[in-house]
Amino acid sequence: MTSLADTHVAIVGLGLMGGSLAAALHGRCARVIGVARREETITQARARGMIDEGTTDLTVGVHKANIVVLATPVRTIIAQLERIGPLLAPGCLLLDVGSTKAQIMAQMERLPVGVQPVGGHPMCGREVAGIEAAGPTLYQGCTFILTPLARTSTAALALARSLVEAIGAHPLVLKPEQQDRLAATISHLPYLLACALVSTADALTSSDPAAWEIVAGGFRDMTRIAGSDVTMMLDILLTNRGEVLEALNTYRANVRRLAQLAASGEEEDLRQALGTIRALRREMYP
Amino acid sequence: MTSLADTHVAIVGLGLMGGSLAAALHGRCARVIGVARREETITQARARGMIDEGTTDLTVGVHKANIVVLATPVRTIIAQLERIGPLLAPGCLLLDVGSTKAQIMAQMERLPVGVQPVGGHPMCGREVAGIEAAGPTLYQGCTFILTPLARTSTAALALARSLVEAIGAHPLVLKPEQQDRLAATISHLPYLLACALVSTADALTSSDPAAWEIVAGGFRDMTRIAGSDVTMMLDILLTNRGEVLEALNTYRANVRRLAQLAASGEEEDLRQALGTIRALRREMYP
Repeated sequence: MTSLADTHVAIVGLGLMGGSLAAALHGRCARVIGVARREETITQARARGMIDEGTTDLTVGVHKANIVVLATPVRTIIAQLERIGPLLAPGCLLLDVGSTKAQIMAQMERLPVGVQPVGGHPMCGREVAGIEAAGPTLYQGCTFILTPLARTSTAALALARSLVEAIGAHPLVLKPEQQDRLAATISHLPYLLACALVSTADALTSSDPAAWEIVAGGFRDMTRIAGSDVTMMLDILLTNRGEVLEALNTYRANVRRLAQLAASGEEEDLRQALGTIRALRREMYP
Repeated sequence: MTSLADTHVAIVGLGLMGGSLAAALHGRCARVIGVARREETITQARARGMIDEGTTDLTVGVHKANIVVLATPVRTIIAQLERIGPLLAPGCLLLDVGSTKAQIMAQMERLPVGVQPVGGHPMCGREVAGIEAAGPTLYQGCTFILTPLARTSTAALALARSLVEAIGAHPLVLKPEQQDRLAATISHLPYLLACALVSTADALTSSDPAAWEIVAGGFRDMTRIAGSDVTMMLDILLTNRGEVLEALNTYRANVRRLAQLAASGEEEDLRQALGTIRALRREMYP
């Protein structure tokens, strides 16, 4: 099996995720090749020592790579998968870092037989986008979900694992549908809730200048992801719509229940509900 | 006017808020007196150098103090206000650190004429309760809302301000109703949302052991306050019920709107809504 140290890795998309991946991999593989739409992104990636070479031409960037990582928004990944197959070297490991996996894996299934597809979803990110925000530590300590297909070789999955470990993340192998269901609740739903909270604060408090002085602590934490890149989030929501809507339904029922308990004055019922939830939260983060 | 350095400060309740206040004030006033229900809390506060003296007897603890701070759950504060008046020295500054103010200030209005009441709400906290979690840095950098009454003297408010500044916090003077309205949206609503999110994750993902490996980042931040002390939160919700229910109504309408946009497939409308929210979030935290 190819060792990561001997590979040429092409990273397509040098935004927050791709740029950080390039920076973290640089020096841990034989060569990092950056592919971006704009020449100035390449210049910046090179200046920051993230890549060994760069190009705006996808064909040139990927054709000799042993590993290709697609680090663009989910629907761009799907579009790139439609045409990237013939451009890849035989045996190439094709990985992506999109947050939803079912639609991407369906498209990966159609790749030429020689290509080794593995889906990826690193559970990290920041509310700032672009190469300016990228850095080598983004992936450290995060869970990096991998979704291989039945056709993916053991060697290819092992290589994907070693890439994940090389950037300081923890690989976790899941089925695509399982990952989409979990991510809907744990990641995509929280984004929408944060958005709704920002809207609510704007509607109810923006006329009071004091509001700006006290938007601290819990509120800041809870709304952080509402600052995420819109194109990225839109792609995520629209390619995982079924799971997201189901999670939203359950969530709305839970909010309604708490609102009813607060309104009813059934104090002991409210106390019990809040106590159960507090215990659950402590189980999640002991 | 009395200078803070010359005052005897009695702190009633030595949990997270009161214990941290004692620790932060110790050495910045003439004497810190701790009042707690249990003898072992006093022993612990003394061992950790938070207080100069301690007692389980409210009468003994407050009768010679220049400043008394009530640091118990909101409804306990209200109950203590009903009986504390005759126990206080003339001219005493009476402050509290409860998160809702309208009901507390109504009770403070009834205090004997000699007492100087100022409501307080420090916008900080942690999801752990008790003196074990207390420490001198809790208040550093936080906004500390002060709600004086018309009867409160300028000198008493100035003393309250200097206490707030001495523990590293920023005083912000608001009217009680104004503070309760803002806190409902910025603090109490987020607590309920975090609770609903924990319930939702439990309902949808707890059967999948992988869920526990990926409850990272955004989810952890967004659910942190669901671990808050239940008695404290119950008192807050029940003494600010009208404002909390109104904030919940607006919030639920915003969630419904986002759910409808996600379900409808009106992509440009969804993009626009998310973009507006992202811009608002960036305005809040430039």
